Amino acid sequence: MIQVAIMGFGTVGSGVAEVIARHSGSIAEKVATPIRLKYILARHDYPDSPFRDLIVQDFSIIENDPEVEVVVETIGGVGAALDYTRRALKAGKNVVTSNKELVAEHGYELLQLARRNNLNYLFEASVGGGIPIIRPISQCLAANSLTEICGILNGTTNYILTRMIRAGLPFDLALREAQEKGYAERDPSADIEGRDACRKICILASLAFGRHIYPRQADTEGITHIALEDVRCAGEGGRKIKLLGRAMLRPDKKVCAYVAPHLVNQDSPLANVEDVFNGIMVKGDAIGEVMFYGPGAGKLPTASAVVADVMDAARHMQSKKYLTWGPGGDDAAVSSDTVETGWYIRGAFPEPKARRAFGEAHFLRREDAPAEETAFLTRPMTRPELLRRLGDLPAQSIIRVLN
Amino acid sequence: MIQVAIMGFGTVGSGVAEVIARHSGSIAEKVATPIRLKYILARHDYPDSPFRDLIVQDFSIIENDPEVEVVVETIGGVGAALDYTRRALKAGKNVVTSNKELVAEHGYELLQLARRNNLNYLFEASVGGGIPIIRPISQCLAANSLTEICGILNGTTNYILTRMIRAGLPFDLALREAQEKGYAERDPSADIEGRDACRKICILASLAFGRHIYPRQADTEGITHIALEDVRCAGEGGRKIKLLGRAMLRPDKKVCAYVAPHLVNQDSPLANVEDVFNGIMVKGDAIGEVMFYGPGAGKLPTASAVVADVMDAARHMQSKKYLTWGPGGDDAAVSSDTVETGWYIRGAFPEPKARRAFGEAHFLRREDAPAEETAFLTRPMTRPELLRRLGDLPAQSIIRVLN
Repeated sequence: MIQVAIMGFGTVGSGVAEVIARHSGSIAEKVATPIRLKYILARHDYPDSPFRDLIVQDFSIIENDPEVEVVVETIGGVGAALDYTRRALKAGKNVVTSNKELVAEHGYELLQLARRNNLNYLFEASVGGGIPIIRPISQCLAANSLTEICGILNGTTNYILTRMIRAGLPFDLALREAQEKGYAERDPSADIEGRDACRKICILASLAFGRHIYPRQADTEGITHIALEDVRCAGEGGRKIKLLGRAMLRPDKKVCAYVAPHLVNQDSPLANVEDVFNGIMVKGDAIGEVMFYGPGAGKLPTASAVVADVMDAARHMQSKKYLTWGPGGDDAAVSSDTVETGWYIRGAFPEPKARRAFGEAHFLRREDAPAEETAFLTRPMTRPELLRRLGDLPAQSIIRVLN
Repeated sequence: MIQVAIMGFGTVGSGVAEVIARHSGSIAEKVATPIRLKYILARHDYPDSPFRDLIVQDFSIIENDPEVEVVVETIGGVGAALDYTRRALKAGKNVVTSNKELVAEHGYELLQLARRNNLNYLFEASVGGGIPIIRPISQCLAANSLTEICGILNGTTNYILTRMIRAGLPFDLALREAQEKGYAERDPSADIEGRDACRKICILASLAFGRHIYPRQADTEGITHIALEDVRCAGEGGRKIKLLGRAMLRPDKKVCAYVAPHLVNQDSPLANVEDVFNGIMVKGDAIGEVMFYGPGAGKLPTASAVVADVMDAARHMQSKKYLTWGPGGDDAAVSSDTVETGWYIRGAFPEPKARRAFGEAHFLRREDAPAEETAFLTRPMTRPELLRRLGDLPAQSIIRVLN
């Protein structure tokens, strides 16, 4: 029997308890030993919860119980979660997490600590909710040299953009709707400013390319400035605006990771990832392109990914499969200013001025546009070149185009 | 060092040799030991191949060499491939295969044989080419009760249908084009009659639901009867015709697996899987729906999946992760006649007759249709009910609709 403790009893933590309870029979069969939930670390009692007898409020009870072999961390953030994760690993316990911030900021340290102690630190649920992505990248695509990861990594912003595109709602109303439906938090800034997607692309970049990439190394732009006018101009050209996290391995082995909205051609499988779904495209030298699609968040999907990791840890108590990557550093990453993409520009100036500045350009015209509005797509170029060519043209919107 | 033999030196086999050679450094690093290709079993010499010195023509050389720990089977079919796989497992060698026919027909026996000998029998490449699907189902989604798998499992037929839809080519011309591009074999029957997709859905059903489902238990219909008129009628309603393999676990724990063309609504992620790509949707109680998308065939994608399995086998020489399922039998599966779907009907009869037979119906009208043509979609019902209601109405086309 493998005994497990859950730290944190919010949405994901309670989902993990539920999934373990619901599937105890089939889990025992698949792992070849039962998995028993022994403790849940929470700040309050939960007198009405079926798990009330498992609640403890003192981490050291878990830390000091040698029977606990796997600890699930769903606390979130980099405060207590970091402290408890370190202590759990030092106490000889495998750790499974859904905490993307912690993995993105401290993944290298924690993976090293786990390895030194011959333990697993697993984090399938930290990216893409329940979508299998960490294990496919590290195992199934292991015979590839991966070159790029590009994905819709945040369900909240994808929902907002989908509602702007389909229902013509302006950003504020679409955000409010997302909050009412429980897809966006009361403070939505980590989502709409791209920080959540940034953490996820950093985790994927570190895993795919082998060195820790920190969130501060990934230029991050959210969707708060996306106007309905842009959604409509893009739509006239058969494109959708999507918030993408991208990470590319350059020939000099440096990584460029960034988060920004992009105009995506409707032929791209990413264009059809709608609502709160996530879609993650992975490119490799042998495989070409594969995409993983599914619910990127949610209590039970995320919990099922956590429990799959718990089962994996339980199956590998004797021989560990290490997920790992190398240390980060300033030399590991380069700015997104080095990336050439097409650009979408919209502003109040006449077409000939755009032609003079950019030469070839693909002009877009939305219905009911004011006479002085010009919107167009440029050929691929870096941001510095774009800004140089733009000069003092009064651009209201500048958005990347996915090539 | 782990020494490997490849059996079969066709498209996939030569791709495996190429991927192992190209990635030897990174493979050694990831597996923590080098992987060395020792033999290639082939029927001829290949004097111009860089691998010519490894070619052997006698399987017993591989069988009797105790240094060979992993054997890759890319022979195909159920003749020599079955014999050699059995003998390799009995000789204590792990086996990795891309042979869907062998796994679909003899998977249970071979998995049992592997397990008895404490060996791995791995087959990620047998379904979906390079798309990770076997391992995600068996590991990442392990905390789910899976309920359905539904996918575009054959790239050849998806290419043909895409060309019929997009370029308006009739079936024969689209097939010829696929042959010219190397997407279809000279004898395309296994693809266009659905047998290839049938083998794959049987493998996925066995893995997901736990009992061996044999191809003869899965009703199989191909795409040879799909007319351009049907493609156009479907298109008017915003739907695409796709060849789907489906497998569902019923409440009585029996499995219904079948292959048939379906009209797919354009909102479905499967509708946007075009050309030679595959897309496989998996439904579970916790995860909801996830989809895996990518190149479903091709030398290097398939080879990269084989090599990932070789790496996995090499990493787990000491402690095996068993893929497994239970024995099949007549009581494991039920006919597709039990499945309720909507139906698309097209024929030369007046609309009122359709209304009398089916009550509510959604009529479709393509451009330039002859006056007497009626095409419509029914509400969900089983095939026996459909045929009863249809009576002697002269239907030219009957195609399922994905709900």
